[in-house]
Amino acid sequence: MLRSIRTSIATVSISGTLPEKLQALKAAGFDGVEIFENDFLYFDGTPGDVRRMCEDLGLAIYLFQPFRDFEGVSAERLARNVERAKRKFELMHELGTDRMLACSNVSPDMIRDDALIVDQLGVLARTAEEAGVIVAYEALAWGRHVFSYKHAWKLVDAVNHPNLGLALDTFQRPTLSIRDSVDEIASIPGERIAFVQIADAPMLAMDVLEWSRHYRCFPGQGAFDVAGFTARVLEAGYKGPLSLEIFNDGFRAAPTAITAADGYRSLRFLEEQTRALIGENAPPELFNPPAPPEHIGFQFLEFAVDDTAREHVAQWLGRLGFRLAGKHRSKDVQLYRHGAGSIVLNAEADSFASAFFQQHGLSLCASAFHVDDAKLAFERAAAYGSKPFSGRVGPNERVVPGVQSPDGSLDYFVDEAPGDPTLWESDFVLTDIDGPYEVGPLSRIDHVCLSLPADALDTWVLFFRSAFGFETEAAVLVPDPYGLVHSRAVRSRDGSVRIALNASMDRYTAVSESLSTYRGSGLNHVAFSTPDNFDAIPRLEADGVRFLRIPRNYYDDLVTRFGLPDEQIDKMREHNILYDRDERGGEFFHAYMEQLDQRFFLKVIERRGGYDGYGAANSGAARGARATAAAGGSGGMRARGA
Amino acid sequence: MLRSIRTSIATVSISGTLPEKLQALKAAGFDGVEIFENDFLYFDGTPGDVRRMCEDLGLAIYLFQPFRDFEGVSAERLARNVERAKRKFELMHELGTDRMLACSNVSPDMIRDDALIVDQLGVLARTAEEAGVIVAYEALAWGRHVFSYKHAWKLVDAVNHPNLGLALDTFQRPTLSIRDSVDEIASIPGERIAFVQIADAPMLAMDVLEWSRHYRCFPGQGAFDVAGFTARVLEAGYKGPLSLEIFNDGFRAAPTAITAADGYRSLRFLEEQTRALIGENAPPELFNPPAPPEHIGFQFLEFAVDDTAREHVAQWLGRLGFRLAGKHRSKDVQLYRHGAGSIVLNAEADSFASAFFQQHGLSLCASAFHVDDAKLAFERAAAYGSKPFSGRVGPNERVVPGVQSPDGSLDYFVDEAPGDPTLWESDFVLTDIDGPYEVGPLSRIDHVCLSLPADALDTWVLFFRSAFGFETEAAVLVPDPYGLVHSRAVRSRDGSVRIALNASMDRYTAVSESLSTYRGSGLNHVAFSTPDNFDAIPRLEADGVRFLRIPRNYYDDLVTRFGLPDEQIDKMREHNILYDRDERGGEFFHAYMEQLDQRFFLKVIERRGGYDGYGAANSGAARGARATAAAGGSGGMRARGA
Repeated sequence: MLRSIRTSIATVSISGTLPEKLQALKAAGFDGVEIFENDFLYFDGTPGDVRRMCEDLGLAIYLFQPFRDFEGVSAERLARNVERAKRKFELMHELGTDRMLACSNVSPDMIRDDALIVDQLGVLARTAEEAGVIVAYEALAWGRHVFSYKHAWKLVDAVNHPNLGLALDTFQRPTLSIRDSVDEIASIPGERIAFVQIADAPMLAMDVLEWSRHYRCFPGQGAFDVAGFTARVLEAGYKGPLSLEIFNDGFRAAPTAITAADGYRSLRFLEEQTRALIGENAPPELFNPPAPPEHIGFQFLEFAVDDTAREHVAQWLGRLGFRLAGKHRSKDVQLYRHGAGSIVLNAEADSFASAFFQQHGLSLCASAFHVDDAKLAFERAAAYGSKPFSGRVGPNERVVPGVQSPDGSLDYFVDEAPGDPTLWESDFVLTDIDGPYEVGPLSRIDHVCLSLPADALDTWVLFFRSAFGFETEAAVLVPDPYGLVHSRAVRSRDGSVRIALNASMDRYTAVSESLSTYRGSGLNHVAFSTPDNFDAIPRLEADGVRFLRIPRNYYDDLVTRFGLPDEQIDKMREHNILYDRDERGGEFFHAYMEQLDQRFFLKVIERRGGYDGYGAANSGAARGARATAAAGGSGGMRARGA
Repeated sequence: MLRSIRTSIATVSISGTLPEKLQALKAAGFDGVEIFENDFLYFDGTPGDVRRMCEDLGLAIYLFQPFRDFEGVSAERLARNVERAKRKFELMHELGTDRMLACSNVSPDMIRDDALIVDQLGVLARTAEEAGVIVAYEALAWGRHVFSYKHAWKLVDAVNHPNLGLALDTFQRPTLSIRDSVDEIASIPGERIAFVQIADAPMLAMDVLEWSRHYRCFPGQGAFDVAGFTARVLEAGYKGPLSLEIFNDGFRAAPTAITAADGYRSLRFLEEQTRALIGENAPPELFNPPAPPEHIGFQFLEFAVDDTAREHVAQWLGRLGFRLAGKHRSKDVQLYRHGAGSIVLNAEADSFASAFFQQHGLSLCASAFHVDDAKLAFERAAAYGSKPFSGRVGPNERVVPGVQSPDGSLDYFVDEAPGDPTLWESDFVLTDIDGPYEVGPLSRIDHVCLSLPADALDTWVLFFRSAFGFETEAAVLVPDPYGLVHSRAVRSRDGSVRIALNASMDRYTAVSESLSTYRGSGLNHVAFSTPDNFDAIPRLEADGVRFLRIPRNYYDDLVTRFGLPDEQIDKMREHNILYDRDERGGEFFHAYMEQLDQRFFLKVIERRGGYDGYGAANSGAARGARATAAAGGSGGMRARGA
């Protein structure tokens, strides 16, 4: 069996005490860790205790860090720094690690003299040699004099001592934080790279130190070309661990186990991306899960219901043109179908769905995706650490592979072989009126939008990127009367499945809901697309579907913003249709149905001219209208606790 | 009676729907508002509805904003922009406001030609004249070509039309965000300043647009010299409203009424500061509350207890050398005294304290401050909108003026006139052993530290700055195993009262606690100072006081950090004393007692050589140790829900 790439993470990346961190990191799958000095200092046990704890868990200690401000100093201070280094080397012996990270000096009184620095790094290298350890020298992006990896490499190369190597970090200059080339990394001899640290981050226009200390995230969650960096590192011949070093205020306050699992998943995902980037010369030990499905679509959405909720949803579906198409052979489960999609209502007692209903009330408990090969899609998701799920299966019923989403809801993968019975035929007693279904005004599910607790957004983005192989769209900030909403969409490569993820900053509503009745994420809305909103909406209204009233002022402003013809504005006003236009002239029409439940609703949308977004610019108007409606009209107030 | 300065705020500054915002702003005390266009667009009612709502409330609409990208455009676009302006002017008539904010153009294709811009602003001014409105032109700090108030003023001056004035904003260049002089403002004719917007912000090294859009705060909460700006504006002869325009992600998610009240309080505080800055020539209508007490000290801390909690706390106090000094004449309240301070334990049924105990358990329900003149101190706090409190007073007992803190706990003000009975003599039956008390190892209360929900920090800072006239210290970020802690201290001018405010980012602990058992802020610790920690701690230990064990690793590291003598380190290790040193050589020794309650504890500190901080650098060590202790030892894990 191939030895795989060694995975590592700095203990500073997650929350908890040192023992909590180590246990969570082991459980997540990491091979080893960097011990961040403060985690050790705040731990009430000896270095030997830490060593034994790691040995018992089977975790290697790949690095001790950070050691600061050694080089470019006066002779007197050098002597003190050597003493300081010796003490840390002793500590490292007791910890059982042979590698220390030394950061380039950030002190304002550093002496900026490369020859002197080479001399002093030489002293450090020889001191390390005596102690039998290796020092990895890193150019901090905010270093006083040495702030690029190229400069650091020049110095390390000049010292030319086996006990001093180069430490590389994606957050170094001039690599990713400065968007400069990383190509020169590939020409550094691999054995001179003593350690490699990896972090992603969103692109932010801020001081690099602040950015680095507070806004890093796991690979796949940010905007850095982390795979490009890693590819060059491997091409250089580096054989050591890939180690995450993430400073993130949110991660430090998030549940330890979840962040640890995200970290491990992100490293594996990085390996897959790096493999793709390098191509056929990629090291075979890079993680190699099954490729994501080439085609994927929504097969059905499944709601957990009780009898009352079922009746309520069924009425809604009826007005939208859905028809009861079948009943499950062995469970209290109904199938509603429509040309635009299928909805399953699950009221089975003592099942996953009933547990979900108990916890969340009427809610989306599962999403099923139609794929080329359900087994492969499942295997990919499972390879990325998603928990497999299997429910009870009756005789001759289909075993549908599924995994858990981060909130515990399920994702099923379904395929159909030509000639075989379909899932519906296997598992359901179909009604006489089963198919073919008219398309009617709605043609398909365009996207699903989920509401998340504020700190869960990164977890979900990574879940869809890795387990599903989805792409991410740019993050947007959406105004809401009760707090801004961070929104980011993920989508399959061909755009056939889109999922918008909304995380509200409203601590009072979102958190209290997530801690009490709501408990985690949940459906915000399902958007059905239509080829012609101006045809579809009046037809739906005639069938009794009610739409959210949009404030008239919105339409008066539309006139000044887009110069649309009056008659079009009049129609949109009449039917409460919102409008957006992108830079290339693509147009988006969308209307919100009245709430189906206090938490979610349905939407009808039309895309024209390649419009590719979600009408975020109008989200404020819809959210304002919804808040007004919830308060019982324009003069109303929503009661809201402090 | 003097007419006061008109107070205003942009509706974007707080959360809620437009009706919610307006009602909260009126209740907070504002004279009028700026209607932020999106708030209007998302409101389902006519402009006339908004006008009537404001009239019914007695709120003026001082401004409609923003109007964008008018000037520096092609002739064709100018014509469209004039149409756009006319429509907005019509809307303003219906709203009943005569003033509109026009922001300098931010479009990349703006034509950077001052002569053209002056021409086009002239067109805007004449269009405004026809409509009977005034346009206030503002240089956005991120404007394409016009991004300083000096440039904007040059253009407005050149247009020289009464319907075009200058809008000033503290977030403009080159005023506060760029830390440049604001002195030239005073030389602009006051009648040409059409509007003044005020915001404060912390100093952040980030893109000015991001900074301005997300991190503004109310005057007194940030680091800008807002009073200096306001003084120049008033010296210029500006007579219009002072209007807050705050873009803050936290405020947009915070409870509407609290933010509105903070806003009003901040404007009044700004007026007081501005008055002080201008001196005797200050406009008499500027807010003029009683000055803060010249001398202030902790008189007593009062805990809400039941019988069990009282016994528990009394034991603790006994070990620290406190003695039962008296019982209240009419209530179930006990007084414990010590040279270092007084503690009141309140178990009175059906009282404020019992309500507090019911809600929070054992908790700090009141703090009493010794001041020169209690009536004046109370009047100042009340003038800043703090709710007065008066409890039951028995015959011949003292009426102690008090106000509510933001969390509902009380602040009392106490003074003593020579010859009159003291508060203790009036209200308590004193024991034989009443005073004089030996100082013992503890000399005084150095500071009190409160734990706050994350979004309450700004509210508390402003409360102490305005109601108490306290100064603020720099904000620091403190690591904790379960989330970073934003910490900021306030203090009386002479440092005799210091209160550290800690807001944790740990959503899971802090928020769930604040929403359930904990409900808001609460005492984190009380720090007693001692002239000699190395004398005090062993004596306290001998009396049975137990101190939190600090990890040994902390002391090993101290050696390398500060080069302290071995014997000193040994003593500190033995007695679990932490150490910090400031840049000027001032030293800080502090030790944490074991938790008195699951939420709070006591601390013993010693300051040497003018050390003025709180040992934040060690907070991580103590928090780590506490988490370890809570988990039951070094190998333990704290159970923690997701």
